[in-house]
Amino acid sequence: MNPYARKSLKWNGWGWNNTHYDFGGSEASFWPFLKAELGCENLSPSPPVALNELNLPPSGLSETLLAELDTTLTPAQCCTDAYERVFHARGRSFADLLDLRHGQLGLLPDAVLYPERAEQVAALLALARREKLALIPFGGGSSVVGGVNPPQQQTAHQAVLTLDLSRMKRLLKLDPVSLTATFEAGIYGPQLENILQARGFSLGHTPQSFEFSTLGGWIAARGAGDRSNRYGKMENLLVAARVLTPAGEWRTWELPASAAGPDLKHLIAGSEGLFGVITEATVRIHPLPVARHHTGFLFHSFAEGVEALRQLAQSAHPPAMLRLSDEAETHFLFCFRQKPGKASASAKVLKKMLAWRGLAQHPALLLLGLEGDHSEVWPVLPLLTASCVRSGGFPLGSKAGESWSQSRYSTPYLRDTLMDQGIGVETLETATTWSRLLPLYEAVKTTLQTAIDQQLAAPQRGFVMTHVSHCYPEGASLYFTFAWPMSQTWAERQAQYQAIKNAACETLAAHEATLSHHHGLGAAHAPWLAREKGPLGKAVLQAIKAEVDPEGLMNPGKWF
Amino acid sequence: MNPYARKSLKWNGWGWNNTHYDFGGSEASFWPFLKAELGCENLSPSPPVALNELNLPPSGLSETLLAELDTTLTPAQCCTDAYERVFHARGRSFADLLDLRHGQLGLLPDAVLYPERAEQVAALLALARREKLALIPFGGGSSVVGGVNPPQQQTAHQAVLTLDLSRMKRLLKLDPVSLTATFEAGIYGPQLENILQARGFSLGHTPQSFEFSTLGGWIAARGAGDRSNRYGKMENLLVAARVLTPAGEWRTWELPASAAGPDLKHLIAGSEGLFGVITEATVRIHPLPVARHHTGFLFHSFAEGVEALRQLAQSAHPPAMLRLSDEAETHFLFCFRQKPGKASASAKVLKKMLAWRGLAQHPALLLLGLEGDHSEVWPVLPLLTASCVRSGGFPLGSKAGESWSQSRYSTPYLRDTLMDQGIGVETLETATTWSRLLPLYEAVKTTLQTAIDQQLAAPQRGFVMTHVSHCYPEGASLYFTFAWPMSQTWAERQAQYQAIKNAACETLAAHEATLSHHHGLGAAHAPWLAREKGPLGKAVLQAIKAEVDPEGLMNPGKWF
Repeated sequence: MNPYARKSLKWNGWGWNNTHYDFGGSEASFWPFLKAELGCENLSPSPPVALNELNLPPSGLSETLLAELDTTLTPAQCCTDAYERVFHARGRSFADLLDLRHGQLGLLPDAVLYPERAEQVAALLALARREKLALIPFGGGSSVVGGVNPPQQQTAHQAVLTLDLSRMKRLLKLDPVSLTATFEAGIYGPQLENILQARGFSLGHTPQSFEFSTLGGWIAARGAGDRSNRYGKMENLLVAARVLTPAGEWRTWELPASAAGPDLKHLIAGSEGLFGVITEATVRIHPLPVARHHTGFLFHSFAEGVEALRQLAQSAHPPAMLRLSDEAETHFLFCFRQKPGKASASAKVLKKMLAWRGLAQHPALLLLGLEGDHSEVWPVLPLLTASCVRSGGFPLGSKAGESWSQSRYSTPYLRDTLMDQGIGVETLETATTWSRLLPLYEAVKTTLQTAIDQQLAAPQRGFVMTHVSHCYPEGASLYFTFAWPMSQTWAERQAQYQAIKNAACETLAAHEATLSHHHGLGAAHAPWLAREKGPLGKAVLQAIKAEVDPEGLMNPGKWF
Repeated sequence: MNPYARKSLKWNGWGWNNTHYDFGGSEASFWPFLKAELGCENLSPSPPVALNELNLPPSGLSETLLAELDTTLTPAQCCTDAYERVFHARGRSFADLLDLRHGQLGLLPDAVLYPERAEQVAALLALARREKLALIPFGGGSSVVGGVNPPQQQTAHQAVLTLDLSRMKRLLKLDPVSLTATFEAGIYGPQLENILQARGFSLGHTPQSFEFSTLGGWIAARGAGDRSNRYGKMENLLVAARVLTPAGEWRTWELPASAAGPDLKHLIAGSEGLFGVITEATVRIHPLPVARHHTGFLFHSFAEGVEALRQLAQSAHPPAMLRLSDEAETHFLFCFRQKPGKASASAKVLKKMLAWRGLAQHPALLLLGLEGDHSEVWPVLPLLTASCVRSGGFPLGSKAGESWSQSRYSTPYLRDTLMDQGIGVETLETATTWSRLLPLYEAVKTTLQTAIDQQLAAPQRGFVMTHVSHCYPEGASLYFTFAWPMSQTWAERQAQYQAIKNAACETLAAHEATLSHHHGLGAAHAPWLAREKGPLGKAVLQAIKAEVDPEGLMNPGKWF
């Protein structure tokens, strides 16, 4: 029984079909809080369209082509039914969910193919060249940048096919001496960790999408896990890759390091399906950590916390995980991450102590996670604690961190619940150097708030909260979450969102902050690509694309 | 007074004009040792040709072009005299020195230009496009892969110009908050460290060529310093770069990390002058370490040492520097790194102890360096020591490591001394994963020994010694040094060397080990590029080249 059978998953929302956001008893206070923040007297329930109400264009596959696909694969690997086509019609960005919930899907993939081996991918690529077929590689489909969406303008392709790689999920090689493992790229996060952990290892890569994203997707989008401080981003975990392109196989050797010209592995990481299909990858693995500890600190302000964070990130012993919430997000977490019955006597004592330390008003929460062998956790903990306290932090103990760690995979479900009530919510993330971090934070926050408020009639307003979650010696990421009361129609809602998104991207570019720290470019960031990469950088990407995919078959409509 | 004025440096050998290898009293035993190892009864002194004996082709610059260069720069920045042209005619590989010492230089650069600002480089690039001039970026000229040599076949260019960047050496920006510094790329190692250390920082990048190589060269060739375990290779230290290409400026933003498509910084690192001129770079800097310690261990065999090394590299606390010599190199170091009067009573005690531990015969020496703040050195030292002892190592104390550390910049001078006596010596380095390291070591060693011996008449033979000097969780580098009695003529000597080099590169490729861990591709490794990168990888590099340098002006004759 395949847990990832597509019908086990929502076609128009996040995650498992039978799973919804669990407020853990805070629902009664959540909605009044949100209405107050957004200046809404009432919510506007906005249920999604049902699958059978969708008016779907028929698959454009000719009989001949379908027959040919059935022979190249098997009929069971070629799907043209509504559920498959709709499930693969979008990723999981706000804009995607809006389309799905309103049934505004435009052009769908004509078929969804499930290759099971690299040889089948190669055969499909050959067929695609011969028949001029567009191919969209699809892992878990959790892209939030339009990375797996079919092009919405009619292209010159005979058909648009989604290549769902989730059946390519074998461990191909484990090298416990070199601490590397080679997998087929369609393997999901939990599948990969189950295989590794059964053998005493872990990849250490757990993005929030972990349950619903794949190794190939992580590489293609250069994802980051919550413990990226320790394990690195996906491009750092990547040792070697094999990509099948329309022009042939592109592979890199398994090397720990090299000076043989530019490192082409870094063209495969971040390639987002435009250069070819990543069929297998060799990655760094790590012995399972034997010690692990989470803890939390409160700072008087986000700015104070950022300075503390910088010192930790630049210290000799940066923790595996660091996450600093700004005042707004801290307030939100304190209100709604409490499980029922948690407001105990000790919480009241804590509250008094915080007031005494001047922290009751608008504190900023830092969560911090250590893991590894015992020498990386227990002797380091007092050093990090001392550093945080010196920076003005108030230690909260281990509860804070553990509660976050337990609930993080469930948070994405909240978006569906909010959209059901007419609330839009989206995230946006970037990275910059430490010296530019606070000015960038202020600028993006102001931009988001202003852009949202311009879309609304007072007293309605937007809600913006932010955290830093990936730290480096020279800088860190910023992750913004913003919510707003949606307007009425699909078109209005998309226009409303686009205005906000455009304003934010302009601010990022003006500050020379990256368009994305770990989500990717996709279609969503295409208009700003030349700003970040420069005109020549963009031209270089186009030249590479032309070399490996001269007919433009791979994932059209992204980047350029 | 510029310490790097070209006339202060040898035009046909390593380093400062007035500096020669210092045997430190071991000369009397060195030559007999070497003669025995190489099976030579006598040496064949082979002095280099003097500069005034060289028969140099005149500069092919037309009067008009020279006038135009004089206006684009100033006459003092345009050199066509013999010393400048000869100094810039080669890098510093064995094959280069052979050409220089025999006065077999073929085509020289027609002029050497010393731009002082990026704007002047841009003006030269514009002129180059207009007049079809070949441009060779030149930093310190320490390339050992033919990376700065003018093409030896007549090309379609009107002239070949070397761009010596050594006058572009300013600090442009220091960001102590983000721990980054931006320099012009022509700055030499010691100049860069002087600037940083005066402000309490260090780059931490000290390759053996440190005194005679530049920031831009390190980036272009993806160099590695002796403490790369701690600081990373040059591509890891690189935060952002600005490259002037014939097609315009190519720059990357200062970002700690990104997911905005492929990381194009990794095309600039390793670009070896083929894409353009790296004019400035932003790099990671580090607070000066307050603690530092070197120590050494002896293992019963190289294989035992490799296993110990792997455990250190994969441990929670890998040291900043690791260097394991095989039995041959250990023997060599013990014979010739002893300063006079060092064979004291304690050395005799040591010898007895080693014999008792079974280490007297053919031990392998591991040197290990720690640095950082106190918490990174003193609590870690007993952990590393315990690990080494568990692996079979015998602790030698701090003397061993310090002696190596003090003498490493002088070692390259020995090559000139050997060539003066008719002995060829060259190095070759690679990297692979731990599980393939020992088989690769054996294969390359055998290949080198066999290829050398095939060139010689018994009892003459080659001498090969090896060390591991850069370690990663998944693998390490191997660095081979080999010596042989040279034949008589220049042509014979080049043929002799090429046969050895070709055999070694074939073995690397057969083992899927990189052509270079930190020297680069240049012209020397061009024939094997497609083996390592694959035909499609090579085609991608060619496509990038065509995009940024459509007329093929930049550093012709390399890679392809």
